[in-house]
Amino acid sequence: MTLRMYDLAGADPARRFSPYCWRVKLALAAKGLPVETIPWRFVQKDLLARHGGEKVPLLLDGDRAVSDSWTIAEYLEETYPERPSLFGGEGGRASARFINAWADAVVMAGLVRLVVADIVKVLDPGDVEYFRTSREARFGMSLEAVQADRDRQVEVFRKDLQPLRMMLRTQPFLGGAAPLHVDSIVFGGFQWARCVSPFKLLAADDPVEAWRQRMLDLHGGLARDVPAFD
Amino acid sequence: MTLRMYDLAGADPARRFSPYCWRVKLALAAKGLPVETIPWRFVQKDLLARHGGEKVPLLLDGDRAVSDSWTIAEYLEETYPERPSLFGGEGGRASARFINAWADAVVMAGLVRLVVADIVKVLDPGDVEYFRTSREARFGMSLEAVQADRDRQVEVFRKDLQPLRMMLRTQPFLGGAAPLHVDSIVFGGFQWARCVSPFKLLAADDPVEAWRQRMLDLHGGLARDVPAFD
Repeated sequence: MTLRMYDLAGADPARRFSPYCWRVKLALAAKGLPVETIPWRFVQKDLLARHGGEKVPLLLDGDRAVSDSWTIAEYLEETYPERPSLFGGEGGRASARFINAWADAVVMAGLVRLVVADIVKVLDPGDVEYFRTSREARFGMSLEAVQADRDRQVEVFRKDLQPLRMMLRTQPFLGGAAPLHVDSIVFGGFQWARCVSPFKLLAADDPVEAWRQRMLDLHGGLARDVPAFD
Repeated sequence: MTLRMYDLAGADPARRFSPYCWRVKLALAAKGLPVETIPWRFVQKDLLARHGGEKVPLLLDGDRAVSDSWTIAEYLEETYPERPSLFGGEGGRASARFINAWADAVVMAGLVRLVVADIVKVLDPGDVEYFRTSREARFGMSLEAVQADRDRQVEVFRKDLQPLRMMLRTQPFLGGAAPLHVDSIVFGGFQWARCVSPFKLLAADDPVEAWRQRMLDLHGGLARDVPAFD
């Protein structure tokens, strides 16, 4: 039975911009598991509640519903062990927990300050009020104010990527010579940003940009060939 | 044949404070390999040059001399594969490269601003001029000026540890249920700091502090039972 997954979409149903959904779509591709994605909007909480979920990604595998990008990755690794490993062993799985935390605390937290007001422009009209209200409450200011100083903030963001850059001196992927799920975890944020904003995140000669391009090439251009800004 | 290792020492030859040497000593303990450490001071470059090295840690294994804490860890993993793994598989080794970079770029770079002037007080008198001159050139200011605002800087440092803290919500070590070499890589910095300075780095209720205590307990208190400030 084909896997199905609720996947956040914009006004254009083909614009799929959730970073956490991208982590899962890349994990499914790495496992060679086809998936039927179902476009979902923020206001459609009832569609997820039906399966006991509250947020996307929500994966449906036969009778089972699995939520949360990390939980889904572990579920896929355990349920489909005969397919290529997402983690490259137990040490890799454990370290991926830390890299997942770094991606959320540093990469995602840095990116949101650079593109959050741009998201509104690609949202389905029915999602705009929910998105603006919930995010402005979180930041305590308008979304436009959050990203107002992004030309300066992007320098901080680039500096915070230094560990990634240092690692790329010795290997082409976080996973080593070939990508592992840790690459998709970090890349999810970059993919999210390019799906919602034309803002330039990385200098052209940044090794992180070269890695991002390699990630866009994976699985026949799975992440590249979608509605996006760059 | 017993392994030997040049290990940075202070005025008290028992005070061994190099974070990179600690990474290796913990790796050797994890592999169950006894080592004879040789106290070494910064001005003794000739002792290392004899073996083709420039910096500690420098490990002597029979006829072979291996430098650099990362290179030594890989050497031990490859040379003693029948002993407990440092990385927990290839995925773990690849991810450890990133965590090593994070430890250097974030943890070490943060710590040095908090304790660098205190180091001078524990150095062997013959090392003081070399250390002060080389480090002040690197910072472009006196060591006292570097750590002058440490009561404020420590807040930045604690905030930068957030990925570690998030990970510790779900597992007790970077290595998962048990420590792996990635734990020693990060811990090396904390061990360095406690060997040279009484400055309090972590709040008592910080999960990172609980992890640090667990690391101090490893291998019969190998890192705890040494000349240190806390």
